[in-house]
Amino acid sequence: MTDPVVRTFRPEPNDYVWTFGGAPPMARVEPGTVLELFTEDCFAGRVRGVDDLVSEVCDFPYVNPQTGPFWVEGAEPGDTLAVHFVSMRPARDWAVSTTVPLFGALTSTHLTATLQDPLPEVVWIWQLDRDAGTARFEARFGDFHVDLPMSPMHGTVGVAPANLEVRSSLVPDAHGGNLDTPEMRAGVTCYLGVNVEGALLSIGDGHARQGEGETCGVAAECAMDTVLIVDLIKATPCPWPRIESDTHLMSTGSTRPLEDAFRIAQTDLVQWLAAERGLHVLDAYQLVSQAVEAPLANVVDTNYTSLAKIDKRYLPGGDAMGGMHARMVETARRFRG
Amino acid sequence: MTDPVVRTFRPEPNDYVWTFGGAPPMARVEPGTVLELFTEDCFAGRVRGVDDLVSEVCDFPYVNPQTGPFWVEGAEPGDTLAVHFVSMRPARDWAVSTTVPLFGALTSTHLTATLQDPLPEVVWIWQLDRDAGTARFEARFGDFHVDLPMSPMHGTVGVAPANLEVRSSLVPDAHGGNLDTPEMRAGVTCYLGVNVEGALLSIGDGHARQGEGETCGVAAECAMDTVLIVDLIKATPCPWPRIESDTHLMSTGSTRPLEDAFRIAQTDLVQWLAAERGLHVLDAYQLVSQAVEAPLANVVDTNYTSLAKIDKRYLPGGDAMGGMHARMVETARRFRG
Amino acid sequence: MTDPVVRTFRPEPNDYVWTFGGAPPMARVEPGTVLELFTEDCFAGRVRGVDDLVSEVCDFPYVNPQTGPFWVEGAEPGDTLAVHFVSMRPARDWAVSTTVPLFGALTSTHLTATLQDPLPEVVWIWQLDRDAGTARFEARFGDFHVDLPMSPMHGTVGVAPANLEVRSSLVPDAHGGNLDTPEMRAGVTCYLGVNVEGALLSIGDGHARQGEGETCGVAAECAMDTVLIVDLIKATPCPWPRIESDTHLMSTGSTRPLEDAFRIAQTDLVQWLAAERGLHVLDAYQLVSQAVEAPLANVVDTNYTSLAKIDKRYLPGGDAMGGMHARMVETARRFRG
Amino acid sequence: MTDPVVRTFRPEPNDYVWTFGGAPPMARVEPGTVLELFTEDCFAGRVRGVDDLVSEVCDFPYVNPQTGPFWVEGAEPGDTLAVHFVSMRPARDWAVSTTVPLFGALTSTHLTATLQDPLPEVVWIWQLDRDAGTARFEARFGDFHVDLPMSPMHGTVGVAPANLEVRSSLVPDAHGGNLDTPEMRAGVTCYLGVNVEGALLSIGDGHARQGEGETCGVAAECAMDTVLIVDLIKATPCPWPRIESDTHLMSTGSTRPLEDAFRIAQTDLVQWLAAERGLHVLDAYQLVSQAVEAPLANVVDTNYTSLAKIDKRYLPGGDAMGGMHARMVETARRFRG
Repeated sequence: MTDPVVRTFRPEPNDYVWTFGGAPPMARVEPGTVLELFTEDCFAGRVRGVDDLVSEVCDFPYVNPQTGPFWVEGAEPGDTLAVHFVSMRPARDWAVSTTVPLFGALTSTHLTATLQDPLPEVVWIWQLDRDAGTARFEARFGDFHVDLPMSPMHGTVGVAPANLEVRSSLVPDAHGGNLDTPEMRAGVTCYLGVNVEGALLSIGDGHARQGEGETCGVAAECAMDTVLIVDLIKATPCPWPRIESDTHLMSTGSTRPLEDAFRIAQTDLVQWLAAERGLHVLDAYQLVSQAVEAPLANVVDTNYTSLAKIDKRYLPGGDAMGGMHARMVETARRFRG
Repeated sequence: MTDPVVRTFRPEPNDYVWTFGGAPPMARVEPGTVLELFTEDCFAGRVRGVDDLVSEVCDFPYVNPQTGPFWVEGAEPGDTLAVHFVSMRPARDWAVSTTVPLFGALTSTHLTATLQDPLPEVVWIWQLDRDAGTARFEARFGDFHVDLPMSPMHGTVGVAPANLEVRSSLVPDAHGGNLDTPEMRAGVTCYLGVNVEGALLSIGDGHARQGEGETCGVAAECAMDTVLIVDLIKATPCPWPRIESDTHLMSTGSTRPLEDAFRIAQTDLVQWLAAERGLHVLDAYQLVSQAVEAPLANVVDTNYTSLAKIDKRYLPGGDAMGGMHARMVETARRFRG
Repeated sequence: MTDPVVRTFRPEPNDYVWTFGGAPPMARVEPGTVLELFTEDCFAGRVRGVDDLVSEVCDFPYVNPQTGPFWVEGAEPGDTLAVHFVSMRPARDWAVSTTVPLFGALTSTHLTATLQDPLPEVVWIWQLDRDAGTARFEARFGDFHVDLPMSPMHGTVGVAPANLEVRSSLVPDAHGGNLDTPEMRAGVTCYLGVNVEGALLSIGDGHARQGEGETCGVAAECAMDTVLIVDLIKATPCPWPRIESDTHLMSTGSTRPLEDAFRIAQTDLVQWLAAERGLHVLDAYQLVSQAVEAPLANVVDTNYTSLAKIDKRYLPGGDAMGGMHARMVETARRFRG
Repeated sequence: MTDPVVRTFRPEPNDYVWTFGGAPPMARVEPGTVLELFTEDCFAGRVRGVDDLVSEVCDFPYVNPQTGPFWVEGAEPGDTLAVHFVSMRPARDWAVSTTVPLFGALTSTHLTATLQDPLPEVVWIWQLDRDAGTARFEARFGDFHVDLPMSPMHGTVGVAPANLEVRSSLVPDAHGGNLDTPEMRAGVTCYLGVNVEGALLSIGDGHARQGEGETCGVAAECAMDTVLIVDLIKATPCPWPRIESDTHLMSTGSTRPLEDAFRIAQTDLVQWLAAERGLHVLDAYQLVSQAVEAPLANVVDTNYTSLAKIDKRYLPGGDAMGGMHARMVETARRFRG
């Protein structure tokens, strides 16, 4: 076996893209390439202290910058892209969160419209101790503080969408995008159906940690140094983004209302098990009903995202996606030396 | 007063576009221009008999062809485009409807996913008597037939979206698009907020008639000969598509779940009345609560669309959008001679 | 033919009931009886001026008082109760509406919970000119006023629920209850499936008029003098409340989210037409898709209510519910002499 | 300290109740009492093999039998009932699950109505090894089997509802009821707001295990031998059911659509922390946003149920509900000797 090709990209401010689809590739990469990437935070690095209000320092729609897109050689509609996250490390010693007027789950929004006043706009800076692996919450209206475990993840991973569309990087959907799931952490492999030639992979929106549902709409947002491997599964469709870890298979669904996102993810998992593990669809339905975990990703974005997650030990033998995850774990091991 | 400029466009098969945004303009037109347009039906004319199944004869994503886009000279973000429909006449003596597997309100879909089998795929051809103004339903499973009034409308009217996006012509949202409301008929003026320079107006998806909600997902679809006038209201935003008739003001909202579409339309109407008619927002809320009609447009598309509609006689004096509707009605009168 | 039996009930303050099910009958009546009823307004008559705030003068859960219940002789589960409204006349020369903290469509609520402040609590008194048939809106924050047509209706009509339940009179569901549809007007017949012996019919919640959706959560609420005829259709189920007018058939659906209420009503109408008019279910689906009106009732109550309404002229011949509506119209004619 | 009073109830078949509210108390108990209870499974024990179809052997609405209700001496509206689960042990060596026509998340239902055929009705018997703590899935359409960990829980815990209502034991709402959350396990304390004198506690619907969301609508249903302690917190409201474990605080929300259930639970948790831990509501919103888990309970019942769950280590010091959980854990220790 040869060592994997490693390529490093650290975008200049003007290099970021703000959509999935519609942007020229930053680079063309071969399947199997290791990518060392820097991603800026969702505010393009403009919110750096408690006085930097998003409504004042950010310039819509130039939020949630993405690093990419990467044209993957040989990728065609009908294939599936595999993205294995080797590592994610916050690039600075702080992360930021905030309320944003008329955005979030516990406020009316532009889509859940009411006549009420918005909540106040408040910024929190979370100090990160990257060696200790902790993120410090400090109350803005009192002197309480507490250290939580860091749990780095990418809010946004996606490819160019289908149907000739270009979507804002704030949107999660079948092409991936702003899924905002804490399950998108180092060690997992994300599967994305390819919709256009070259697939056009981008990532961004690093979070030092995030609760399930991303309740206020904003995680502990941070720039991130991320290493990933990209690979290709030919002639294998993937209708919705899927994630595989060493222990679990996961399907995602993104739409509104939230029960429809739940239905998509659960249906996709049932059909995935039926297709790859030889279970009758009704047996898969029963097994999933008793065994599934259903961690919410976001209940704040343009579409809400729900996951269906099952422990591989409960399943009949067989490999997901032709054994891609195990091979990528092995590649990651060789890369790290 | 001078006669309006009149321009005629009848696209060739390769001239249609399938998105809002992302396509080069078909033509550049001055505000005040009368456009005589031909629009193909949502199946690109491929479903012409009961044996033409959509799943066999159509080629996704090449459905719902749009005529346009038209670059309107001087249109800039922050302006509002006004589109007055002078006339709509079905271009053929038939229209078509059908069930489509996993599409429609009374079936599971790709977004409301279940494990059930889809409904059968069945096509209905509606004969149109354009002089009598009737559309004939003929049962496929029995010999019943009945003539309903024709009530021509455009399912799709829109401009390029905001946020750098390109959306499929199947999607309704803040840029308009596939609103699928029977209120989009001859005699009304549709207001659309401009998101990009030139606005990039397109229309399509003619319906000989449609029920409220478009229950099976497909109206009585027909090619259409349509005359409209396009004009521009400078420095006036329009957050969601609005419609004005001689008698009513209407706001639209498009999202899921349906109650959120309702909330958007109702909130927009309340705020519109407060802004233009001098009503306190709570007085507007009360008056709307007792006076509004809330006709559903579609409960089948990517977003659902709800309207809030109020009789102008119930409102304090004042013109909507600077009196644009009345001026366009007058222009239409001069055009028709 | 004999003249119908006429019975009059004007409850004392302690006679009202606040639930469907769970209350002893006010009286036992024979099918075919004409009932002359007084119903108090939804605030039990306690909000009589702009300074009477609901949060101060009302005593939850003692709101939305119902007149009844009436035990209908011979009614058994599996039957359908028919309620024909002969006349509805506001009992006073005023009606009242108000905002209620955390209730209504354009505010967060106890079910659509946010951290925002509620809207202000404001009361509007609508003067009714019952001879002219008008209701006067007077702005609270300005001097605008306007006369709207009165359009009397009952927000609440229902029977005891199934499944051993007792439901608050604020709830609409399969047993009827607080449907809040403007279609519940004089001249229509409402069909309600019987769930318990005697059916236990109650009505209340008169509205001088109401917009579709009842946006702020409160109509122009009024006490009402109502004449109705109650009758019984044996061995005929009615899964959801249905309404028949001289011109239309209507099904209702009540649940959340609103698209599910829409689905219930549309499915019930399709299946009703298939069962009574001999249309194949797919032909009924198609005809409904092009012909249906879908007036919203309420988007504010515990369940939201949507209607599916079709013009009888578009349907194959046949009587709904065995011709009950026509017979009740004839009885009403004889009653009025 | 004295030993707790212990009382044992094993209902006869005619002793079960099918509602919350509306049934006379089985017994009156003092706060602090230990209750040793037997609960029958949700099918009243009638589905005992793969040929026992629910549609044939069950008699609606007599499903989901509850053991109770228990009148708790001194309980009044405005108090909170505390129910600490000491142990739950499946009472038989098998559990049962099944598809039920038009019930479950991955099928149309009576509320999410479509015109499609229902899924087939299939029964699975899960063998329980209570000593090993495992539950065996056996495929019906193949020879796969696998042992999953048992994780006993009660689907149903509740009190009489507010607003004069009586609710089916199939319904989850503010009174508790059919929450169907796997978090209702031995070792936790459930808090329920008291709505009527005596509170009227009932429990039932044991599950040997259940996935999050209860996807097919039916868990691994089993009769259960359960020991609990009931106690009372005077003059302390609890707007929605809450759960405390040794490590976490949890709020629940039950309604539709699912995002509204999420909003209720998250809002309740934020307000709970603000009220008991001295956090400003916006600081609580921020901390919850980054720290919360959001395990789904059910996405299949009349209302959907979502939880908001936070690790107590992340919170400022202070006791929940006056330290009731710790006291009940101590009582449980003394009871077990």
